[in-house]
Amino acid sequence: MSKATIKQVAAAAEVSTATVSRVLNESGYVSEEVKERVMEAVDRLNYQPSAIARSLKQDKTFMIGVIVPDISNPYFMGISRGIEDVVGQEGFQLMFGSSDENPGKEERLLQLFQEKRVDAIVLATAGGNDDIVGRLADAGVPIVLVDRKLESAEAGERLDLVAEDNAEGAFRLTSRLLEDGHVRIGVVNGPARASTGRERDEGVRQALRARGIASEPLVYNGEFSTEDGIRAVRRFLASDPRPTAIVSLNNRMSLGVLLEIVRNGLRIPDDMAVASFGEVEAGSLLKEPGLYYIDQHPYEMGTRAGELLLRRIQAKEEKLEPACEIFRHEVNRLN
Amino acid sequence: MSKATIKQVAAAAEVSTATVSRVLNESGYVSEEVKERVMEAVDRLNYQPSAIARSLKQDKTFMIGVIVPDISNPYFMGISRGIEDVVGQEGFQLMFGSSDENPGKEERLLQLFQEKRVDAIVLATAGGNDDIVGRLADAGVPIVLVDRKLESAEAGERLDLVAEDNAEGAFRLTSRLLEDGHVRIGVVNGPARASTGRERDEGVRQALRARGIASEPLVYNGEFSTEDGIRAVRRFLASDPRPTAIVSLNNRMSLGVLLEIVRNGLRIPDDMAVASFGEVEAGSLLKEPGLYYIDQHPYEMGTRAGELLLRRIQAKEEKLEPACEIFRHEVNRLN
Repeated sequence: MSKATIKQVAAAAEVSTATVSRVLNESGYVSEEVKERVMEAVDRLNYQPSAIARSLKQDKTFMIGVIVPDISNPYFMGISRGIEDVVGQEGFQLMFGSSDENPGKEERLLQLFQEKRVDAIVLATAGGNDDIVGRLADAGVPIVLVDRKLESAEAGERLDLVAEDNAEGAFRLTSRLLEDGHVRIGVVNGPARASTGRERDEGVRQALRARGIASEPLVYNGEFSTEDGIRAVRRFLASDPRPTAIVSLNNRMSLGVLLEIVRNGLRIPDDMAVASFGEVEAGSLLKEPGLYYIDQHPYEMGTRAGELLLRRIQAKEEKLEPACEIFRHEVNRLN
Repeated sequence: MSKATIKQVAAAAEVSTATVSRVLNESGYVSEEVKERVMEAVDRLNYQPSAIARSLKQDKTFMIGVIVPDISNPYFMGISRGIEDVVGQEGFQLMFGSSDENPGKEERLLQLFQEKRVDAIVLATAGGNDDIVGRLADAGVPIVLVDRKLESAEAGERLDLVAEDNAEGAFRLTSRLLEDGHVRIGVVNGPARASTGRERDEGVRQALRARGIASEPLVYNGEFSTEDGIRAVRRFLASDPRPTAIVSLNNRMSLGVLLEIVRNGLRIPDDMAVASFGEVEAGSLLKEPGLYYIDQHPYEMGTRAGELLLRRIQAKEEKLEPACEIFRHEVNRLN
């Protein structure tokens, strides 16, 4: 028989993992009836608290707060699934908040998670919250940054980070378009507030400089939404001279770019070449796609973030060197 | 000057709405420094607690738990945005959990939200949890069901519900294919555990009966995912005789259906007609779409659910008749 987990005990006793923890640690109020149910399940399943469970402080909530800028973006949900598959084994549950790229909303979610005493926070920041993130870290809340860095390098260096090599990815994507002979390139990007936006912008400019192109690229800055991709194409098509290629710096915006190009009866890549940071699942619906893209690895990023979370939760007061994991990419072409 | 909201006060004081509430109600521990910040913000913004805020019990958390079966489905995020736009005005924040169509996971999330003392729960159930939902309702937790009913009609009738006319929508979609002359129809559906799956299945069968078609339709039951749509098409293409039309009963599965049809070099609708319950944003990437679909109204459903939530939270112990709001659809064709 495989070893029972605290999650299985909680399920058998029809309570949460936090309640099982309270019963085993004899901390906090639990009714006699519930106590009995839990202990019966512990006995029946022959549950042995794991090393991690034993190392936990008694007031754990078994709740991990995840704040992302766009909860319906499959990229962030891929990251979340990776985290969950790792931390779920130890009985932790994820609770999500969506900042919608709004720093004020993100700040309120951070406060709420702190008040709810989550055991750790995973943050893909919309930007603008270096101060409160720093205060939470000072207060001992384990925080892992995913996908995006804080605005101040100094503040961020104290925290665990799992991110992508954004500048390099954008450099490669843009270089591919330049190698195909394009000179006038439209750039669809998110806000500079997000580190991914800043770094990808820098990668595009490096590629242009490396190719000796001195003119400024045509840049549209949105909020990483499908609608932004649509609006960007409208803007580009109205400009004179038009760009002949578009580099779109996130998957959601890329879908919008493709939709608007097709609606205008233009062919990809003959009338407008497109390179996307991130795969667009629907891209293969295109008759003649020929789309450049770099595929991302959100699930793997999530499992790594999950491991870092467990490490941090276990370490408690003990000092740990912050970890920094950067994922790299190759450019692919959709056929 | 427009009236200040509790949310604006919280933002100005750099605390959560729950903390503002605690300060104003003099309940729970709040440090002197924070109290001063809050009262300064209250004075500066001339904040007057709304009728709803005044009617709240003092121990409100200003947190509403939202449990959906697929957090990255834009449909559920549309509902959530509608809810948030209504309840956010009154200072409530949404916290999300994703059951991934897994009743056990949904049960743990329900327990966790109860322990965290959320002020209300919005549930799009994966099924199998009538008992615990009933217990929560008995314990006085306001619950609004969205999109999906409980399995027992009796248990569900006690709760507020905002849903769609699933049987009617599926009937209309299928009838349109039958009117075009199709006889052999492949049906892609979710699990019968979900009320939407059961009702849509019934609508398809009603349409077949109404047209005098006695043979059983070819049905693929998945978990409402894009991969399920892909697997269903593979199954249908391998069957003999092949269906000439597919009715796909949710937007995620419809994307998978379209992807796999295109990958097989088939044209829509000439080689395979498709009718989708729910719009597929990427559908217009198709060269010749001719796709039937019914568009859903998740945002409007969400605002209605938000209104019902506020009504329930305000009512407190007072008995209210459960509300039942059913949204209807028209069939459209993508050109």
